Amino acid sequence: MGKKKNAKYVIGVDLGGTKIYAAVIDRNDKMRGSARKKTKAENGFESTVKRVVSCIENAVEDAGITLDQIVGIGVGSPGPLDLKEGKIIETPNLKWKDAPLKARLESALGKPVKIDNDGNVGILGEYACGAAMGAKHVIGLFVGTGVGGGVIVNGEVLHGFNENAGELGHIILDPNGPKCGCGNNGCLEAFSSRLSIEREIRTAKENGIKTAVFDGVADKNELIRSKRLAEFFHADDPAVKMAIEKSATYIGFAVASLLNIFNPQIVVIGGGVVEALGESYVSIVRNVAEANVFAIAKRNVRIVPAQLKDDSAVLGAAVLGWQAAQEKKKKNDA
Amino acid sequence: MGKKKNAKYVIGVDLGGTKIYAAVIDRNDKMRGSARKKTKAENGFESTVKRVVSCIENAVEDAGITLDQIVGIGVGSPGPLDLKEGKIIETPNLKWKDAPLKARLESALGKPVKIDNDGNVGILGEYACGAAMGAKHVIGLFVGTGVGGGVIVNGEVLHGFNENAGELGHIILDPNGPKCGCGNNGCLEAFSSRLSIEREIRTAKENGIKTAVFDGVADKNELIRSKRLAEFFHADDPAVKMAIEKSATYIGFAVASLLNIFNPQIVVIGGGVVEALGESYVSIVRNVAEANVFAIAKRNVRIVPAQLKDDSAVLGAAVLGWQAAQEKKKKNDA
Repeated sequence: MGKKKNAKYVIGVDLGGTKIYAAVIDRNDKMRGSARKKTKAENGFESTVKRVVSCIENAVEDAGITLDQIVGIGVGSPGPLDLKEGKIIETPNLKWKDAPLKARLESALGKPVKIDNDGNVGILGEYACGAAMGAKHVIGLFVGTGVGGGVIVNGEVLHGFNENAGELGHIILDPNGPKCGCGNNGCLEAFSSRLSIEREIRTAKENGIKTAVFDGVADKNELIRSKRLAEFFHADDPAVKMAIEKSATYIGFAVASLLNIFNPQIVVIGGGVVEALGESYVSIVRNVAEANVFAIAKRNVRIVPAQLKDDSAVLGAAVLGWQAAQEKKKKNDA
Repeated sequence: MGKKKNAKYVIGVDLGGTKIYAAVIDRNDKMRGSARKKTKAENGFESTVKRVVSCIENAVEDAGITLDQIVGIGVGSPGPLDLKEGKIIETPNLKWKDAPLKARLESALGKPVKIDNDGNVGILGEYACGAAMGAKHVIGLFVGTGVGGGVIVNGEVLHGFNENAGELGHIILDPNGPKCGCGNNGCLEAFSSRLSIEREIRTAKENGIKTAVFDGVADKNELIRSKRLAEFFHADDPAVKMAIEKSATYIGFAVASLLNIFNPQIVVIGGGVVEALGESYVSIVRNVAEANVFAIAKRNVRIVPAQLKDDSAVLGAAVLGWQAAQEKKKKNDA
């Protein structure tokens, strides 16, 4: 039997509100195959579990291997989660409650499964093989539809007492600020998410600030994609520029607080908005953060864009896959 | 030789901007003797070192033991600090730069010394033998002249990359808020410290809000003591009540952020202002925090007053003293 057929792999799954992304990852963090499917959360939890299973099978096929060669599966999911039970406790995005994600995937695929929330697997990916490699103290902030986060302290993902630490999108930056999706006021997410950028642009337009971002768009209520935001930012569109700068500025204030709180070595800024804008966005974050923090908390500290882009979650989830495999082996050996 | 003469002790030192407090602590975290002296930082670092040494000698005498029985010394100091070198890098309160605190105390007393910043030793004390005993994830916030903090993650004090994590007084709560002593705007400290409470009361008075807190005070510019603040708060003095409520409310917002960030099991609120006001202050913090946080981040989480009051720092410093003794022993054994 050839060496290749003996090789072992894990699956990393990025379970999002709109899409499922599964990838086969080898021991060297290299992606060997992948597949995507729509989540269709509205059809219920059991239906989505079937879609995840089928997406995993497609990724295995894409990699040219067999399911036998998979030793573990990791999943990044919206939270809050019960990590020990492997359940989604509740999530506004997916509308499920107490959904036994780990148990259902384990019984469907016969592999050990480990789950963690999307922000945590995102930063775990960047830590394992992206922008934060080699650092022991890392903060991740991911600016997308919402604002996700994750923290690594002494080389371990910070989970806390109820395993729900790292909700960095809900740091309060102004108690009198705009309403956040979580129900509170002035959270980071309410200033910096793509939805907040969008709201700012529409408000600016209503207030007479010029913007061409809606020109030629048939449905004026359609969400503006990050790529289009980046184009208009670089073309100096007044409303878009103002809204993006505000988003990055508030991320900068949050990073200043996080530097004083955690004194990390690297802060990784990622997510769809940052991928589209790159250094133009991160440089604003860096300038604001460094202007608002103690000298010692920024000494040799780097604030950098994420490197793995769309793949940070599957690569971080793959780390959980290897942990699941190891934990199963330990149990069997005991 | 009697058992008592063989018993070993450590010294915990609380080195503050105005006073030095040293205590002899036994293996059961019991205080056997103590002494206090003024810091007199304005006379220079070497002069204060002599005062610390003399304060330690007085504490040893008060305990009725001899210096031979001391196996280690821990010191809580204003920061930022270089923990490995045992130096005070810089501090606004004490006006020293690169002050070799550990080396000078070790050579003066011939005992191993370990230092950490005041917020960290404060929460370490509450963790070792106060309000946070038994918890693995703990946040401490200390409201005094400034606002200090400390974090325990998985049973370890959070130090971070440059060993200066835990500056919780400088979480930004409103980028357009009042100027903070650190130079930035809208830090927690700028809303909640005793100096900020004082500023609020004076501003309120100027704006015609009634207060009797300055009645019968000879020097109107003298700082109002925490005890007097508490008296007038309980007497429903309008300006004092408003200022204290604002202080506690902003501590509450910061606690909400910290619950979402760390998901701790216990949040300990201490410091002079809280000691004087007790549950009246902490209940405001608790209500605001719990109204502004995810359900999961407050599940079974307790927000409580500190228990050790003035002694939290010396008791936490004593933990460092035992560590210093153990590290020296390891080195000698190796």
